[in-house]
Amino acid sequence: MRVLAIDPGLTRCGVGVVDAGASRRVQLVQVDVLRTPPELALGLRLTSIYDAVVAYIERLQPDVMAVERVFSQHNVRTAMGTAQAAAVAILAASQAGLEVHLHTPSEVKASVTGNGRAQKDQVAIMVTKLLGLSQRPTPADATDALALAICHAWRAPAMNKIAAATR
Amino acid sequence: MRVLAIDPGLTRCGVGVVDAGASRRVQLVQVDVLRTPPELALGLRLTSIYDAVVAYIERLQPDVMAVERVFSQHNVRTAMGTAQAAAVAILAASQAGLEVHLHTPSEVKASVTGNGRAQKDQVAIMVTKLLGLSQRPTPADATDALALAICHAWRAPAMNKIAAATR
Repeated sequence: MRVLAIDPGLTRCGVGVVDAGASRRVQLVQVDVLRTPPELALGLRLTSIYDAVVAYIERLQPDVMAVERVFSQHNVRTAMGTAQAAAVAILAASQAGLEVHLHTPSEVKASVTGNGRAQKDQVAIMVTKLLGLSQRPTPADATDALALAICHAWRAPAMNKIAAATR
Repeated sequence: MRVLAIDPGLTRCGVGVVDAGASRRVQLVQVDVLRTPPELALGLRLTSIYDAVVAYIERLQPDVMAVERVFSQHNVRTAMGTAQAAAVAILAASQAGLEVHLHTPSEVKASVTGNGRAQKDQVAIMVTKLLGLSQRPTPADATDALALAICHAWRAPAMNKIAAATR
């Protein structure tokens, strides 16, 4: 299963793509940060993020999208920007027929480090180790997107079982 | 100038289209409410809103889009949904080459009624009167979108002058 994970943001939008195999094995496919300048019109920023996500989907053919669910940001303006960046990524996924799953930051941390309140540094160390990388992935602020991709890959089997049982 | 105004929301998204002429004259072109059921996946809800806005732009050929800027909602989940519905509408406008302008609810109320804290009812009465309608526009919850379109039509000349002076 190939997971395209989005850590949404208008100024910096993390993109992580991971292949998940048997026995919780995960492999790095792509990591990137999309940037749009704050002085650009909102419509152009959203178009830029949307176009990039569409291009990733076309090129890498993921099976599913995972998006970080953000509720608790103190800065309302930033939270709105995050929600808007997430919206155009989710739109791109939905138009391509991909299912979209949301995970909270604490779910991601718990999944990757075993601790829902882990520090950023611990997450980066675990992501590096889990993906078998010789050094931390760059750009550093895309590490969260990789953690999110791994989290989804590991939670998906249980989520699918629950969904099947509910049907 | 034809203004396409969006009062964004996931469950109900108001759409108002108004033609603005000389001497602050305004004319109703279209009023509608897009609805998406809460039980639908977020991606499908956003796709539905996006597709509808794309269709309105193609069919009605507006010159500009106005979107209500919402900051102060108490319910964070609702605020996120509002931001996400706004995002896909803004994306559709931007892809069609339209400029997008945001106005706050109090700017809209002040513009249409002269009072930034006007009640919903006062706004509806003024919108009905300004558009020369024999009865209040239906659906009623799209009245805010018409008020927003009128607000933009009236504020645009001053905004353009300021923009020109800044250049």
